[in-house]
Amino acid sequence: MKPINVGLMGVGTVGGGTATVLKRNAEEISRRAGRTIRLFMAANRDVERAKSVCGPDVTVVDDAFRIVEHPEVDIVVELIGGTSIARDLVLKAIANGKHVVTANKKLLAEHGNEIFALAHEKGVMVAFEAAVAGGIPIIKALREGLSANRIESIAGIINGTSNFILTEMREKGANFADVLAEAQRLGYAEADPTFDVEGHDAGHKLTIMSAIAFGIPMQFAKCYLEGISQLTAKDIRYAEELGYRVKLLGLTRRTKEGIELRVHPTLIPEGRLIANVNGVMNAVLASGDAVGPTLYYGAGAGALPTASAVVADLVDVTRLLTADPGHQVPHLAFQPDRLEDLPILPIEDVVSSYYLRIQAADRAGVLADITRILAGNGISIEAVIQKGSVSDGSAEVVILTHRVKERNANLAISAIEALESVAGKVVRLRMEELNG
Amino acid sequence: MKPINVGLMGVGTVGGGTATVLKRNAEEISRRAGRTIRLFMAANRDVERAKSVCGPDVTVVDDAFRIVEHPEVDIVVELIGGTSIARDLVLKAIANGKHVVTANKKLLAEHGNEIFALAHEKGVMVAFEAAVAGGIPIIKALREGLSANRIESIAGIINGTSNFILTEMREKGANFADVLAEAQRLGYAEADPTFDVEGHDAGHKLTIMSAIAFGIPMQFAKCYLEGISQLTAKDIRYAEELGYRVKLLGLTRRTKEGIELRVHPTLIPEGRLIANVNGVMNAVLASGDAVGPTLYYGAGAGALPTASAVVADLVDVTRLLTADPGHQVPHLAFQPDRLEDLPILPIEDVVSSYYLRIQAADRAGVLADITRILAGNGISIEAVIQKGSVSDGSAEVVILTHRVKERNANLAISAIEALESVAGKVVRLRMEELNG
Repeated sequence: MKPINVGLMGVGTVGGGTATVLKRNAEEISRRAGRTIRLFMAANRDVERAKSVCGPDVTVVDDAFRIVEHPEVDIVVELIGGTSIARDLVLKAIANGKHVVTANKKLLAEHGNEIFALAHEKGVMVAFEAAVAGGIPIIKALREGLSANRIESIAGIINGTSNFILTEMREKGANFADVLAEAQRLGYAEADPTFDVEGHDAGHKLTIMSAIAFGIPMQFAKCYLEGISQLTAKDIRYAEELGYRVKLLGLTRRTKEGIELRVHPTLIPEGRLIANVNGVMNAVLASGDAVGPTLYYGAGAGALPTASAVVADLVDVTRLLTADPGHQVPHLAFQPDRLEDLPILPIEDVVSSYYLRIQAADRAGVLADITRILAGNGISIEAVIQKGSVSDGSAEVVILTHRVKERNANLAISAIEALESVAGKVVRLRMEELNG
Repeated sequence: MKPINVGLMGVGTVGGGTATVLKRNAEEISRRAGRTIRLFMAANRDVERAKSVCGPDVTVVDDAFRIVEHPEVDIVVELIGGTSIARDLVLKAIANGKHVVTANKKLLAEHGNEIFALAHEKGVMVAFEAAVAGGIPIIKALREGLSANRIESIAGIINGTSNFILTEMREKGANFADVLAEAQRLGYAEADPTFDVEGHDAGHKLTIMSAIAFGIPMQFAKCYLEGISQLTAKDIRYAEELGYRVKLLGLTRRTKEGIELRVHPTLIPEGRLIANVNGVMNAVLASGDAVGPTLYYGAGAGALPTASAVVADLVDVTRLLTADPGHQVPHLAFQPDRLEDLPILPIEDVVSSYYLRIQAADRAGVLADITRILAGNGISIEAVIQKGSVSDGSAEVVILTHRVKERNANLAISAIEALESVAGKVVRLRMEELNG
């Protein structure tokens, strides 16, 4: 089958990430989509830079209108941003019958009604997973995953720059201006940070989520915006003393009187999962009448996480264009003729860290015996604590190990259990770091 | 357009929830699906009970085979459970060209390969969002939302019974047997809890996630299972002293040697979000090469949360059967001719709680003045703390209020700022409880 041809408009951070993901995961993606998704054409002001990013097989132009007019382009990816040229390009692409994937939250929040009306008329898809919360598939969750629900409210940490600043202000007791300067140095904040720290960016994303949650038109102009630039380290500290964390929250809620649509710094009880989302990470808490509260967490920005959402949209559109309804989304995600028979590892071959609790019959020398056995099986120790006393029979040694193959752990445990100075069985639990 | 006719097989807890959601949210669902989804027929051993649950418009039979043979049934929902009759029914339904929605994790983990092969051949959908983690749309996230990624690992708290028991063991220092008895009394654990507490249920769910994450056949027989029944309160306490929480984790990971597929109690650093998922709640941490770590949290069981997933699958299948590709998933989730123009509330009409920080020029009488103004505007106080001293000019009053309309809060703040005993502006931050 002929590949799907993608025209990429804008080869900056996210555009570069999109080109990278399409190339690096080409095999995985075609196994899922049932068809090759090919970067066919790209447009960028700096043509040379785009050529070096996209590689020699991609036609690079400086005028993005050549992409939306090109008869062989099936899907246009708009990553230019803003609402002037991007709006013209998207409307033109739709008019030409091309499907559109965009990460442009501002464009959708401010001109979405016009764009979606034209897309509906032309029967083309405008997919925008990347416009909200980067790599977190929250649009799909709200629009499809929770479709049985009367959605009641959405609360989101949806601006990574602000969340990074608030996290640093709390952890270091620092003031806004100092942390902003650090964020700018690290590349987490723009030279002009207004759009992020005054809530505009969060407001655009919230407007989009509110529309798809409640079935209302996009109304960004009615979104209340209050940023974090006036927050002081003192108020963050006082809030913490009272058991709260301060987050820049986008909040939309259905009430009898109407829809709440607001972005502002918010105190949240410290025990909530969303209160513990730190740094540049994003999270969205969505509550429905059937499902109750659900939370979605991940990277809200960055080249590869945002590209993850852009390319997922490309896979969605490709699946819809490629197969009949019964075969569109493969049951096991991958096309049935492209499953792999990877071996499942027996547990003895799995590598893990361990918690070991050992009952000592006699403390003298027991730790020396145990550590000798662990070392002999290639197991290094992360921590040891001793508990209780020999006299009342409660002497115990608790050990956390570094990572080792389970087979070696088993050998060591058997040898430890055979020691005269050890009573009964060793308690063994596995440990995982689980970054994220 | 003719409604989609659903045949419901099994009207127990989840079946009852499904009937409830289809009825209660009928309007919302048809606005999203573009078509009425009608409960047309139901099968249950206890016909009378099913009739009282489903209402007079639904044909109730005692033999589920009558549903899979009925020419007017479009989608069959299998909620009978187990692998004998359920397998026969599902295979027969597929053979008859009917689409299937099922919550049966055991059936899929043990017989999925056979079922999906037949479904592919017949061009019908077998949807199973409800089979893993109840209301959390994790199948959709893995199969569609993360389709750009080479998925690296999945770690999930996917058995609510076990997580409830572990949470209680930690919080109360209680032993397994005592907490199990409590869980049975509360209806969180079955009379025979083996399936939940020994990891079989988690293993079935993990097998399904592993297959769709890595593109491999279902291989439940190779899943390593170790439950929580041998865990002691002591080890949970020691783990906590070392900075870890103990969770029953389903873990599947891609390594060079093969796929890890294992369920066992696991120590997780206490700072991780997933380590703080408590009670009967579920969460899945999925990591991809582009998106990095993502987490999905919500209710993993229960009538309505599981029904949320069943009905979302019904909406998916209905959308696929109803419209051409460009119109299948509406841009704004709801059909464009069925958007509502709900009013967006001005911020003055929003109800919220507040954090107020007030700089006192003179402490004498200031608190009395403030509380009089708050009470006069219908604002009750949740907490007050006083900070600093008048002598060095740092006297402050921090107040947390109960919920009140912003208009009243504004009036109160203006009046407070006008007090002689108050200096400068009042700092005002909003507070939200955000259950979940």
